[in-house]
Amino acid sequence: MAFINENFLLKSGSAQRLYFDYAEAQPILDYHNHLPPKDIAGNRQFADLYEIWLEGDHYKWRALRANGVDERYITGDVSPYEKFMAWARTVPFTLRNPLYHWTHLELYRYFGIDALLDERSGPDIWRQTASALSTPALSAQGILRKFHVKALCTTDDPCDDLRYHQALADSGIETAVYPAFRPDKAFRVDDPQFWNSWVDRLAEVANRDVRSLQSFVDALDARHAFFHSAGCRLSDHGLDTAFADFCDESVAAKIFDAARAGRAASALERAQFSSWLMLQFARMDAARGWTKQLHLGAQRSANTSMLAKLGPDTGFDSIGDKPQIDALGAFLDRLQRDNILPKMVLYNLNPGDNYAFAAMAGNFQGGGIPGRIQFGSGWWFLDQKEGIEWQVNALSNCGLLSRFVGMLTDSRSFMSYPRHEYFRRVLCNLLGSEMESGELPNDFDLVGRMVSDICYKNAELYLSLPSLQEARVLV
Amino acid sequence: MAFINENFLLKSGSAQRLYFDYAEAQPILDYHNHLPPKDIAGNRQFADLYEIWLEGDHYKWRALRANGVDERYITGDVSPYEKFMAWARTVPFTLRNPLYHWTHLELYRYFGIDALLDERSGPDIWRQTASALSTPALSAQGILRKFHVKALCTTDDPCDDLRYHQALADSGIETAVYPAFRPDKAFRVDDPQFWNSWVDRLAEVANRDVRSLQSFVDALDARHAFFHSAGCRLSDHGLDTAFADFCDESVAAKIFDAARAGRAASALERAQFSSWLMLQFARMDAARGWTKQLHLGAQRSANTSMLAKLGPDTGFDSIGDKPQIDALGAFLDRLQRDNILPKMVLYNLNPGDNYAFAAMAGNFQGGGIPGRIQFGSGWWFLDQKEGIEWQVNALSNCGLLSRFVGMLTDSRSFMSYPRHEYFRRVLCNLLGSEMESGELPNDFDLVGRMVSDICYKNAELYLSLPSLQEARVLV
Amino acid sequence: MAFINENFLLKSGSAQRLYFDYAEAQPILDYHNHLPPKDIAGNRQFADLYEIWLEGDHYKWRALRANGVDERYITGDVSPYEKFMAWARTVPFTLRNPLYHWTHLELYRYFGIDALLDERSGPDIWRQTASALSTPALSAQGILRKFHVKALCTTDDPCDDLRYHQALADSGIETAVYPAFRPDKAFRVDDPQFWNSWVDRLAEVANRDVRSLQSFVDALDARHAFFHSAGCRLSDHGLDTAFADFCDESVAAKIFDAARAGRAASALERAQFSSWLMLQFARMDAARGWTKQLHLGAQRSANTSMLAKLGPDTGFDSIGDKPQIDALGAFLDRLQRDNILPKMVLYNLNPGDNYAFAAMAGNFQGGGIPGRIQFGSGWWFLDQKEGIEWQVNALSNCGLLSRFVGMLTDSRSFMSYPRHEYFRRVLCNLLGSEMESGELPNDFDLVGRMVSDICYKNAELYLSLPSLQEARVLV
Repeated sequence: MAFINENFLLKSGSAQRLYFDYAEAQPILDYHNHLPPKDIAGNRQFADLYEIWLEGDHYKWRALRANGVDERYITGDVSPYEKFMAWARTVPFTLRNPLYHWTHLELYRYFGIDALLDERSGPDIWRQTASALSTPALSAQGILRKFHVKALCTTDDPCDDLRYHQALADSGIETAVYPAFRPDKAFRVDDPQFWNSWVDRLAEVANRDVRSLQSFVDALDARHAFFHSAGCRLSDHGLDTAFADFCDESVAAKIFDAARAGRAASALERAQFSSWLMLQFARMDAARGWTKQLHLGAQRSANTSMLAKLGPDTGFDSIGDKPQIDALGAFLDRLQRDNILPKMVLYNLNPGDNYAFAAMAGNFQGGGIPGRIQFGSGWWFLDQKEGIEWQVNALSNCGLLSRFVGMLTDSRSFMSYPRHEYFRRVLCNLLGSEMESGELPNDFDLVGRMVSDICYKNAELYLSLPSLQEARVLV
Repeated sequence: MAFINENFLLKSGSAQRLYFDYAEAQPILDYHNHLPPKDIAGNRQFADLYEIWLEGDHYKWRALRANGVDERYITGDVSPYEKFMAWARTVPFTLRNPLYHWTHLELYRYFGIDALLDERSGPDIWRQTASALSTPALSAQGILRKFHVKALCTTDDPCDDLRYHQALADSGIETAVYPAFRPDKAFRVDDPQFWNSWVDRLAEVANRDVRSLQSFVDALDARHAFFHSAGCRLSDHGLDTAFADFCDESVAAKIFDAARAGRAASALERAQFSSWLMLQFARMDAARGWTKQLHLGAQRSANTSMLAKLGPDTGFDSIGDKPQIDALGAFLDRLQRDNILPKMVLYNLNPGDNYAFAAMAGNFQGGGIPGRIQFGSGWWFLDQKEGIEWQVNALSNCGLLSRFVGMLTDSRSFMSYPRHEYFRRVLCNLLGSEMESGELPNDFDLVGRMVSDICYKNAELYLSLPSLQEARVLV
Repeated sequence: MAFINENFLLKSGSAQRLYFDYAEAQPILDYHNHLPPKDIAGNRQFADLYEIWLEGDHYKWRALRANGVDERYITGDVSPYEKFMAWARTVPFTLRNPLYHWTHLELYRYFGIDALLDERSGPDIWRQTASALSTPALSAQGILRKFHVKALCTTDDPCDDLRYHQALADSGIETAVYPAFRPDKAFRVDDPQFWNSWVDRLAEVANRDVRSLQSFVDALDARHAFFHSAGCRLSDHGLDTAFADFCDESVAAKIFDAARAGRAASALERAQFSSWLMLQFARMDAARGWTKQLHLGAQRSANTSMLAKLGPDTGFDSIGDKPQIDALGAFLDRLQRDNILPKMVLYNLNPGDNYAFAAMAGNFQGGGIPGRIQFGSGWWFLDQKEGIEWQVNALSNCGLLSRFVGMLTDSRSFMSYPRHEYFRRVLCNLLGSEMESGELPNDFDLVGRMVSDICYKNAELYLSLPSLQEARVLV
């Protein structure tokens, strides 16, 4: 039997029934990813597995490095085929890493290949996939169709003109493609050169002067409104820990003015400015009914030599162990007190903190919104079987799994759509085994409803994305 | 087959045999709970499921909020029946939360109801239970009898006059009801108004002036002795982290005098005063052979808006992630050096710290007392299958499970007694599966003895509660 | 069936096949332990189970204390037989502690005894084992032969003259016995009396004056070279957290001079001096192709009363919860930037940090060395089934299990060699169950190769220990 077969990860009859009857047919709402809007709008066709699979995937780069492969074969100057073969040789060494499952699930779902990738099978697989990749079925938009992606949300800078989103809205594409608002650069008062050039660009796209803190916030709000008109309903922040060094507006204004004048903010000033700014973003999100995402707990660019050579996001990030809960609690509490608490999804990267996150989310439920504060899906290093099970268990025990908005790819790659299938199989396997052991009632209506809710319906209800038609009109 | 059936959670034949032959018949020694002594003494009869089940249970309130239910249906002004029905509608959404198991186990054990609670079954269940609740079998004392509760320990303020405990001791009740000494308020020098009014009350009940630190300690010791005469053998402290900012008595006296004069202690002063005071309490506990409980790791009242509306203990507490081990180690070491280390139970709320707690307990064993320092049972958010298994595993691997004093309800509700059954089933399931897989010897005498010890006998031996007769005489 | 039988811990047919076909026959490379070189060189013969099993094993002492056994029967003045019987009585109370498995696995492998040890079986077992221990098969060297220990690395002070290692190299022993370089004492500038006496000894064995920081480093380097000539290829450091308070050489020199003059370094100075010194050790390790081990996360000597009575390493250490990742990341990054990053093995003691460690290791892979930075085997409190599985899972999910250098005993006892078997069984059980459930391909060549690599071949390749012949010539 092939490694990837129809019952992959589904170890019991009940798990299989849950998956095939309640999960498999659900469409995908991929509410957080890093796909390039340009590639979707241009309906990019990929030349080969290198382009679609290896070119930008720092998960694979880490595995290659750990396997002792020379950097030339990873980010260096050898040919795409040589890089692919370096990967093919490495795959057998990734046994038990999620890459091993993902690799073969992707080869099977995109190309119908059920061979195990290794040095021997590599050359054939390279040829076979290159030919398939030249067909419309595996263009960027073909892939979205193939995987029943009903809507997806990219990750975008507030200065982005969203031209590709607009083009997509005009194009009649079946998959709704919305932007998400990720203003990471707005916080960088510690690097005034970088920050001022970004603020100048913001002023330009917002078509106004940005000389004061208030005009800065106004410009950001104008972009927030513009994103809203393009169907955006989510914002996102990638933070080591939550910002909760709150200061008065006058203090924030001083820090703003100094940075505008080229003086770098201190660490404390940056924290104060960021905390203040996070309140403004929360206000905007709450006012427009958006969902705010916090990605917490990463330790980024740990290897500064490689950062200098290759830049950020090249496979040198890992998991932090800073205390999270005091700051996160203070942040949420402040939003609640100021009546600007939007719907939120809290993603945690250190599995040792799962319970504390899930329990903290439970302190700010209410307002008539089921699952108002979500403990988000296993993220990055936790987006694998064990990590998914831990997140599901922590949420189940400290909150309501039934209200969970489920999976997203968080990926830069068009090859990542089987992650939804992967998540669904893990979920159904967990629930199915408990139905068989008597920990859950043996009632498929009851448990199956929860499965289909988590796979798709909860996210649709919770996120309130506009219909494709609605967004098109607004843009 | 009904969801709750005789083999609920017992997945192997060995697990079933362990449970039915060694666990089920053991009486209950519920050495830590929050039951109102007045209700026991008055043999309260409950009007309906709202009164006995929902009125004070902030676990359920959290689930209701997370399910999007309006606060009016939780702590607001709608009728008890409407609140119950809001809960009935929410129950199906609690699948995989411990509430789902507890709810149905409680309906079955108290009322013989094996239907799943939901909107449809709710009205019938309301009627059926109301009628059962009017019978003596389900009075407060009837419940204790029904569950073979041999002894229980409530949680009491040192100023409490223990009139209900005295009444109970005089009443001939079969269940021994003892107080436990929880002096949380004694530490609150940071809130002099609140604290002074409590100290004044202490002076009154201890029938002496409390003008100096020494007279404060004397008054507390007098109450400690009074509690002892009423059969109390446990104290309890709820702390974010252990106090280990030790200071000289002169420093503590200054802080005391200032607070008595109405000046609020600083954070450091409060920590110093508390550390000093904890030494006095340890001395009292050690001198009278008591067991000290530390409940560590909670993050309380995170939502200050709701705190202002509803007060504390209303479902807005969660799990902290502060470092615990340095302070806990320093505290235990100081007690050991001062020869005032009592028996202790250390409860931990953040599962990421389980191993560090269990291993720390192992540093202070000895003195001829088996399991002298206990790593306590899974608490609050950890009082569920996964949390129980984690605690049992951490204790097993870092210490001696065989010496574990086992489960307690920690509950405000008379409906929580099946928690002991729940724990026992989880324990037997764990051990039984290991007997079948060969990780434990297939020897029922050996493993079964450990089971019955953990269920009851260890606690009886360890806690040295007085006999009911003995305590009665002393009161 | 006996408790320890051929399928112990191997719960599936695939697990059994993996173990018997790919793991069992692999030799042992015990690259980190605390065996006394003198005992190996002298081919020590042990009088009885007390000498070989209880005399120095603080794991057992902790269990005895937790079981309420009086200290006299642990480290006190009763006879070896009485101490053994105290242990025999305690063993049944260690059910589910790794000691229970280890005890019976050791009795079976060394003596063929399959009875469960307890008060009844104790006397017979004492007699039977004493007689077996008098035979050459159970001499120190006999044991190494019996367990196919191809090479082992002890743990040695830089001042050690390695006379026993030299004698062993000259003796024709089949097991290569190499030293490892553990310079813990070099850091103790906070205790100038202790430190200066050690530095004086260093000067003597290195045959040079040590008056300046530079001469101190030179002397250490001379010892490093001497250890290298004796076949040493590993260094080791036991640290609460990594040192990353880097200072200039001039600052380090000032701290050195002050300590040499008898002034104790402050906590900050000690951290600075240690950070600077760690760079020098890294430079030496990198230059000579050694592997550096960091043992992180212990909380040592928590019970200072018992420390005063019994000294360190007597069973009063546990698991810390200090933040690890910032310092560890900064340390590794500095080595990488300075081009002095050796191969490294990072051992973590707090299981809540496993993922953060495993992910951090992944930031510094490369240089053409497979598995260059290793996330080391479950250590001390984590060297048991659950801990081993957690380490294997964290490494699998965040890195490459296939490149793992596997198990070591880390033991002071010649009775600990079955730990390798224990690890291999746990590993094969994990992988075998996943082959049967379809999480791993059902391909014994593929998975079996990984098993034998982890059991022995990876360590051999990675550590590049010299051949016995080579080391002999060099000494």
